[in-house]
Amino acid sequence: MSSFYRINPQPLSEICSLILQNNGVPVEDAKTVSDSLVDADLRGVSSHGVIRMSIYLNRLEKGVMAKQTEVVTMNETESTAVLDGGYGIGQVVSQRAIDLLLEKAKNANLAAISVRRSNHFGAAAYWASQLLEHNMIGFVVSNVEPLMPPPGGAAAKVGNNPIAMAIPAGDEKPIVVDMATSVVPLGKILAAKSKGQEIPLGWAVDRSGEPTTNPDDVVQGGFLFPVGGPKGYGLAVLVDILSAVLSNGAIGPDIHSMYQDFENPNDISHFFMALRVDAFMDPTLFKASVDRYIQYMKDTPLTAGAKEIYLPGEIEANNKEKNLIEGIVLPKSVVEELENFARAAGIQASLIEELTNNPYEETVSNI
Amino acid sequence: MSSFYRINPQPLSEICSLILQNNGVPVEDAKTVSDSLVDADLRGVSSHGVIRMSIYLNRLEKGVMAKQTEVVTMNETESTAVLDGGYGIGQVVSQRAIDLLLEKAKNANLAAISVRRSNHFGAAAYWASQLLEHNMIGFVVSNVEPLMPPPGGAAAKVGNNPIAMAIPAGDEKPIVVDMATSVVPLGKILAAKSKGQEIPLGWAVDRSGEPTTNPDDVVQGGFLFPVGGPKGYGLAVLVDILSAVLSNGAIGPDIHSMYQDFENPNDISHFFMALRVDAFMDPTLFKASVDRYIQYMKDTPLTAGAKEIYLPGEIEANNKEKNLIEGIVLPKSVVEELENFARAAGIQASLIEELTNNPYEETVSNI
Repeated sequence: MSSFYRINPQPLSEICSLILQNNGVPVEDAKTVSDSLVDADLRGVSSHGVIRMSIYLNRLEKGVMAKQTEVVTMNETESTAVLDGGYGIGQVVSQRAIDLLLEKAKNANLAAISVRRSNHFGAAAYWASQLLEHNMIGFVVSNVEPLMPPPGGAAAKVGNNPIAMAIPAGDEKPIVVDMATSVVPLGKILAAKSKGQEIPLGWAVDRSGEPTTNPDDVVQGGFLFPVGGPKGYGLAVLVDILSAVLSNGAIGPDIHSMYQDFENPNDISHFFMALRVDAFMDPTLFKASVDRYIQYMKDTPLTAGAKEIYLPGEIEANNKEKNLIEGIVLPKSVVEELENFARAAGIQASLIEELTNNPYEETVSNI
Repeated sequence: MSSFYRINPQPLSEICSLILQNNGVPVEDAKTVSDSLVDADLRGVSSHGVIRMSIYLNRLEKGVMAKQTEVVTMNETESTAVLDGGYGIGQVVSQRAIDLLLEKAKNANLAAISVRRSNHFGAAAYWASQLLEHNMIGFVVSNVEPLMPPPGGAAAKVGNNPIAMAIPAGDEKPIVVDMATSVVPLGKILAAKSKGQEIPLGWAVDRSGEPTTNPDDVVQGGFLFPVGGPKGYGLAVLVDILSAVLSNGAIGPDIHSMYQDFENPNDISHFFMALRVDAFMDPTLFKASVDRYIQYMKDTPLTAGAKEIYLPGEIEANNKEKNLIEGIVLPKSVVEELENFARAAGIQASLIEELTNNPYEETVSNI
């Protein structure tokens, strides 16, 4: 038995889409979700990939995430809008928001949309990057349930709210920042715990808010810590304001864990913003200038251990190039889960077999 | 002799303004600069306060910062503009940008202005905060000369570019984030060096890009390090793009140190953005909601050593309240410098005496 499989993105997306459809999600919406998850796997951000299917299906079944996503425009101007996601699927809500954002930015040069009552939307970079081909700069943030204390605090009050921004380039790959506002995601703490390793001081704090190197202290009532202390905390607070306060969405204890609470809607909020480059300068000149900036940055003498200087998002873009050709590597456990969902959904056997056609033996470093 | 003086903000600003006027700066512009510097001192951000007068005067005298600031609009739309600061005074350039931004945001709900060929504009928070009374959210960033390597690099390629954002509140103090994208500013490294202390690992790297605890390694060819590594680097890159690339301004080696290079213009770039709250929701409801968010955050159990939970910008706002009543505390060395500039500018003796009327003996912790 192999520990991993290599899977082509197209059938992987189709299988996920069919599973979602069989669970009550409309065709177009199912495709939107699947494409976003598979894109994260292509980019090597497997934490936001098809591994999420299990949680999504569970939340759909429990009724805390709506199968039919109905997005309502609460109010709008030529350049702005507030949307209510109706506890629908985060990706579907986000695709509607991006489509509306594009329409508004085309007319108004700048556009911003704040969205309440949504769910996990996958990787923030996926949405910000949709603006690139339109020669726009994309800015996307989302709040999540409280996971970090404010500095000096001993309770989780603010999420490790992600911030993404995408900058179009010319011949070079676009610059795409996508960062959580904690030092590390919870996954890294859990990985250290499972290996019996200590975590570096500064990654997280125990239940008293004191720094700890023991992952058990974090898992048992402790918290993630904001990157740079007051800096990450400040950024996470700004995300809460732009996404949840500006949309009259949920904050703090009214946001429920996607992973642990299957009785209540996740109830997170997003904020999307677009800037048309041609409102400032000719997009061709801009993109040539971004290319020069990228070359300037990559042309940096290296430290002893380093092999290359990367721009934000470059490693993920490299992963995508590679995985589009070679296929996505998924661990056996994730593939088996998908197989079970696919069989339960009555998907034809020849398609399901695409999941396990290519066993992959090597240890994979980038997932 | 006292080591410190307490000085009322009004005469302090008047003295700075008169010195600048005597050095060729028009009355209104001199007042703009002085008010910005004194506001930083009031907020306890003394690194961006009147201590900067010496450098500003030097740059004005050498002709690398223009005495008469002429800001030219290179292009504009209803909601955007690109400005050329003509190597004028950063605060004067920024005040013109903010005035134009306000005008545009009033009409278009969202507005953004990218500005090239400018100089140090003081604290970024000062400009973002000017939008608060108009019920707008302010976002202000600036690039500075390269001070940090990209992760894996052994040369400074990107500034510790500051990011500021101001959120209006109701009865509570506004939320104002103002952060450099390095772990710490250079001042903290210099302070450790002067005290013969080691610096924590992670603050900075030596000339090979390797982490160091010796402040001498940093001062002698080393570099500041981005907060959170790739995260601070990513944010600093975004600031470069929004400020300098979008305005066709200087990047990398074309930006010259304000502190060390008196032969060339500083040549930094800024980016200003405003979002009208009422484009999204009623500003009174928004501000009440921000107040509730602030109360929610402050109502957090404390860690063993902590006395209070602060929102971003709250400590600075508290400093300002206190210093408006008690006066600004400045070290003797800064006051003596100002006295010399004031005498050289022919300012009347009774005004100059305001600087030294109130000696202050205590050790001051917040400057």
